Amino acid sequence: MAVYTEIADDELDRFIAGYDIGAILSVKGIAEGVENSNFLIVTEAGPHILTLYEKRVDPNDLPFFIGLMDHLAARGLTCPQPVRNRAGEALGRLAGRPAAIVTFLQGMWIRRPRVEHCAAVGEALARFHIAGEGFALTRRNALSVDSWRPLFDRSAGRADTVLPGLAIDIARELDQLEAAWPTDLPKGVIHADLFPDNVFFLRDRLSGLIDFYFACNDFLAYDAAICLNAWCFEPDGSLNVTKAKALLGAYAKVRPFTDDELRLLPILARGSALRFLLTRLYDWLNVPPGALVAPKDPLEYLKKLRFHRTVQDVGAYGLNI
Amino acid sequence: MAVYTEIADDELDRFIAGYDIGAILSVKGIAEGVENSNFLIVTEAGPHILTLYEKRVDPNDLPFFIGLMDHLAARGLTCPQPVRNRAGEALGRLAGRPAAIVTFLQGMWIRRPRVEHCAAVGEALARFHIAGEGFALTRRNALSVDSWRPLFDRSAGRADTVLPGLAIDIARELDQLEAAWPTDLPKGVIHADLFPDNVFFLRDRLSGLIDFYFACNDFLAYDAAICLNAWCFEPDGSLNVTKAKALLGAYAKVRPFTDDELRLLPILARGSALRFLLTRLYDWLNVPPGALVAPKDPLEYLKKLRFHRTVQDVGAYGLNI
Repeated sequence: MAVYTEIADDELDRFIAGYDIGAILSVKGIAEGVENSNFLIVTEAGPHILTLYEKRVDPNDLPFFIGLMDHLAARGLTCPQPVRNRAGEALGRLAGRPAAIVTFLQGMWIRRPRVEHCAAVGEALARFHIAGEGFALTRRNALSVDSWRPLFDRSAGRADTVLPGLAIDIARELDQLEAAWPTDLPKGVIHADLFPDNVFFLRDRLSGLIDFYFACNDFLAYDAAICLNAWCFEPDGSLNVTKAKALLGAYAKVRPFTDDELRLLPILARGSALRFLLTRLYDWLNVPPGALVAPKDPLEYLKKLRFHRTVQDVGAYGLNI
Repeated sequence: MAVYTEIADDELDRFIAGYDIGAILSVKGIAEGVENSNFLIVTEAGPHILTLYEKRVDPNDLPFFIGLMDHLAARGLTCPQPVRNRAGEALGRLAGRPAAIVTFLQGMWIRRPRVEHCAAVGEALARFHIAGEGFALTRRNALSVDSWRPLFDRSAGRADTVLPGLAIDIARELDQLEAAWPTDLPKGVIHADLFPDNVFFLRDRLSGLIDFYFACNDFLAYDAAICLNAWCFEPDGSLNVTKAKALLGAYAKVRPFTDDELRLLPILARGSALRFLLTRLYDWLNVPPGALVAPKDPLEYLKKLRFHRTVQDVGAYGLNI
């Protein structure tokens, strides 16, 4: 997060006093999440996470995010649970921002996932998709295919400063993906950002999922494609097919892919790669003065995109056709 | 801290396994300290702080810092206590850096100190000075009077870009302070950086001191002057004499100032103001590309310096002459 919002002492005390979690014993800004300010607060009831929603988050989306965590937890998925204050509200205001307290989830994210971690995340993603069924609220994916061209337009003029030829490469990819993008795959609530830092493990057992602030309604298999890109490539940019097979295979054991999903997975993987290429490219070209977060390398996702272009079918991901 | 050092999963597990604090359940990079990477780790034995010492800290100073925390804690001062591993060592290596685990201290720092907080910190500082007696190691103050001119030389050419006339103002101050700086005031171990973010309170009671990484041997009254500047000025730059009287008065109740200390306090306060003006000026003019920490305003300390120039005696700080 760029800047931790400072919370005035008495305002924090008053806010915490509205909850039934005892007095506050400690508060530390934590280096987690890039969209919001997060604090690990220890109260007499134990550790909690306090989140201040900064301006990149649309306040109108907050009931969806908070409600989703409630819905998932009620259906047995391990994720942070919003804590309600004495007035029964999970969403309050602190330091001029929307704010929420959620339960503290034990576990650590894995810096270098191994095959067994990929299998665990595949299974957890499928369970997430099933647990999401019946959630009453909806949120469109603001970063799906229809947003990519306008997003690219904001970077196109300077894309070649990052890599000569990048602009024409992306423009062609956009043309192809817009034409090939599916319209009627199974949909539901997707996490849309299930990178390793959003999955906690405890002694190699998956202990929970966090950070639902990109969650939305979209193709379920697109979420699997996002995980494939986020978990199964090696630092040198090559796909580890053993990891891909473990992740997608474990997913399919819980929620089998349809034939259409399997057929379109390479396209969804290209789309997912392009989505992260575009947002990273934009962030790379638009580092604000005094920014406190180093932008991520967009070209990592160009490599992944180019790999998926060579893919004929899901056999390349270790699955049976 | 500019960048949190990433710790490899297995390396962290191995490191923690060397201590008798149970398995690790959570690790979060925390926004605390600017010189080092700090992590709040929760193990089966509860919360701890893990510090990786980055390159701004001289490894040769670490035995002083670690030993000082041990010494102070043994003498009843509430501060983080170094945890020894099974080999009896408080200092290890992790992610290619010196690393230490210390106990977790409850409490929060006060964003807007009131008079009673200033009194509490004055008393705690005096107790710190007394508890420091008998500590076997010594460390010279690398940021005392003899370092100010070389430090200024590195900023002098561009000082006027911050404020016209600043260079000549500082140069004159340096001449005066070098001539007037005392040589034989009572010395001991000083904290040298006891700003509000290094003092924890729990329900308005001071619960402990942290961050001993500027501690060194120097004039005890100089430490009081640092606190005077850090705690007793209002946001508009004016001294709150009630706070000054509370802080210095509470200090003197535990460890009375000598007549020389009282006479020289305005000079020490000018020196302390100049020291922070100079380091902030240097940092202001030398923000590294991609820096993740916003530099602090050097001119805050110019205002304090100019105030102390007008001071005739400690009556201006609310003390009896």
